[in-house]
Amino acid sequence: MNRSAPVAWKSVHPISGEDRVIQLLKHRFARSSPSVKRSIGDDAAVFLPRGASEYWAFTTDLLLEDIDFRSAWISPEDLGHKALAVNLSDLAAMGVRPRYYTVALAMPGGITERWISRFYRGMTALGTFHGAHLVGGDLSRSTQGILVSVAALGESLRKKVVYRSGGKAGDSLYVTGVLGRSASGLRLLEMGRIRGETRSERLALGAHRRPKPRCAAGLWLAQSGLVNGMMDISDGLSIDLPRLCEASGTGAEICGSSIPVFSESEAWQCNPLETALHGGEDFELLFSVAAQNVSLLEAKYPQTLTPIRRIGRLRRRAGVVWESRPGTGFQPLPSLGFNHFRS
Amino acid sequence: MNRSAPVAWKSVHPISGEDRVIQLLKHRFARSSPSVKRSIGDDAAVFLPRGASEYWAFTTDLLLEDIDFRSAWISPEDLGHKALAVNLSDLAAMGVRPRYYTVALAMPGGITERWISRFYRGMTALGTFHGAHLVGGDLSRSTQGILVSVAALGESLRKKVVYRSGGKAGDSLYVTGVLGRSASGLRLLEMGRIRGETRSERLALGAHRRPKPRCAAGLWLAQSGLVNGMMDISDGLSIDLPRLCEASGTGAEICGSSIPVFSESEAWQCNPLETALHGGEDFELLFSVAAQNVSLLEAKYPQTLTPIRRIGRLRRRAGVVWESRPGTGFQPLPSLGFNHFRS
Repeated sequence: MNRSAPVAWKSVHPISGEDRVIQLLKHRFARSSPSVKRSIGDDAAVFLPRGASEYWAFTTDLLLEDIDFRSAWISPEDLGHKALAVNLSDLAAMGVRPRYYTVALAMPGGITERWISRFYRGMTALGTFHGAHLVGGDLSRSTQGILVSVAALGESLRKKVVYRSGGKAGDSLYVTGVLGRSASGLRLLEMGRIRGETRSERLALGAHRRPKPRCAAGLWLAQSGLVNGMMDISDGLSIDLPRLCEASGTGAEICGSSIPVFSESEAWQCNPLETALHGGEDFELLFSVAAQNVSLLEAKYPQTLTPIRRIGRLRRRAGVVWESRPGTGFQPLPSLGFNHFRS
Repeated sequence: MNRSAPVAWKSVHPISGEDRVIQLLKHRFARSSPSVKRSIGDDAAVFLPRGASEYWAFTTDLLLEDIDFRSAWISPEDLGHKALAVNLSDLAAMGVRPRYYTVALAMPGGITERWISRFYRGMTALGTFHGAHLVGGDLSRSTQGILVSVAALGESLRKKVVYRSGGKAGDSLYVTGVLGRSASGLRLLEMGRIRGETRSERLALGAHRRPKPRCAAGLWLAQSGLVNGMMDISDGLSIDLPRLCEASGTGAEICGSSIPVFSESEAWQCNPLETALHGGEDFELLFSVAAQNVSLLEAKYPQTLTPIRRIGRLRRRAGVVWESRPGTGFQPLPSLGFNHFRS
């Protein structure tokens, strides 16, 4: 770990070789500052304002039309919701409370005031729910498509912040919620099923269009003091777990039969396990807990929060391996991630 | 002034009816918070972190290829510089010190690692000069052109922050530097003179490609306690002065012969006064000083900082008027602004 490189890079939409480019950049251009806590490769940067009683986390994310969303598949309200949710998820992954956000919105001609109003209604409804205030922004014309860039600030509680790099060999690995639901929803859209007809379809479409940032779970987990490493799963477990491992200097082994999959998606020819491993945009939390704290965590974790599931453990040996069921033998987990609109 | 709408909207790239849309949005969607200082329509939002000894300002700005820049006309270093400069200028306009920034960068295929490195080199060189640390970001693929979204945080000194809304009728109006230089540079580019051949041409091109945020001047002005209202001039005096007036509840009268114009641009058929009034992207500061403080300000203002010039005054009566020379009679100043790549 290089203490002089306090750069919180992450990606919701990977480009080819992105991790390598980020690695290169952060070592070349990052500068240290006494008020910036170490946060290499984390979901958000963390700093301590002079005199402040809490740490603050700072993150930014971009949604681009035809890369991250298609206008025909998402309402303005849902787009506003999602653009903020992606950022709140970064804050949730640090265990901090959302506080303020700004939004830069660029739009092609033909966007109506009504569209803009609906967009902000969706965004501010989610923000208000999580206690985050819209404090500024930028409006611009775009020659090509809609783009939304949100930046968000969160505040710690009792100075407790969890980093991606805190994982330790031997830790048990957990996820919140269900994996692969968002990707199953995208699959429905690709099949032209823009309105869900069954409860399962609506669940999947909802997960894709209106992801729920796990702010309450992230805050509880950070406050518990039982979590060593944490991040959000934005690009898919098979891409994000290796990132947690790399940041923590560990490897990992996971078990397919332990992963909370969205089995209902079989009804529309999704493979639930594949989608859970490689699907993106679930915005669930991935975190690690020391072996001796596992029973305490499971006993104390509130039933009112998104359920958690133990999916494996961090190991000393590098690399991420998986087995389909216990005892079937570990094999390398390919980082397929999820290439939604990418060719 | 509506204290329940603490939203810091501003625009570097106006769209049609933008001010009206922003007005509508901020009254409908902004929520108040005890920790957010009033900042309607300001260059940045201002908040006080719990326990902190200083206010923090939060701003964001977007640069889009073929709207805000053309790749053929700007180097990657200069683009990185400019994308950050635009944000630092917002912080300068509040009189706060730049601290941290994030950058979301979306790029089409074909952008090389070398391009990315040069972009970050230009950006971080400017950041380091002003004491601002790159703390995070997002990299993405774009289907159409390059886009850069920066979000920046600044910290006050001795809790002194200046707002756009602080102007008072009777205040003298000042600007820093020279107006119209950046627009003259853009004119050269439009004429195909991508490399400057004379010192004047190089000055103009430099102002357009590598604007200098007036952080030191803004900080000094805020610390002086002599400035009532302040903002940066990003869209041109004829667009931005009415914004300061509206926020302050005043009108203004200015004198053409007092405006610091870039007279050298006559060599390439620019009208220096027109360009100063309506040219955009100067990123100079516009501020107001109570009449009784004018001599003190002019006596104390350090010679080492960007020169300031008195261009007129705020008046009680609404509307912005100008006269070409003293005594020639005031007429309304049309808000022509600057429509660089806009048709």
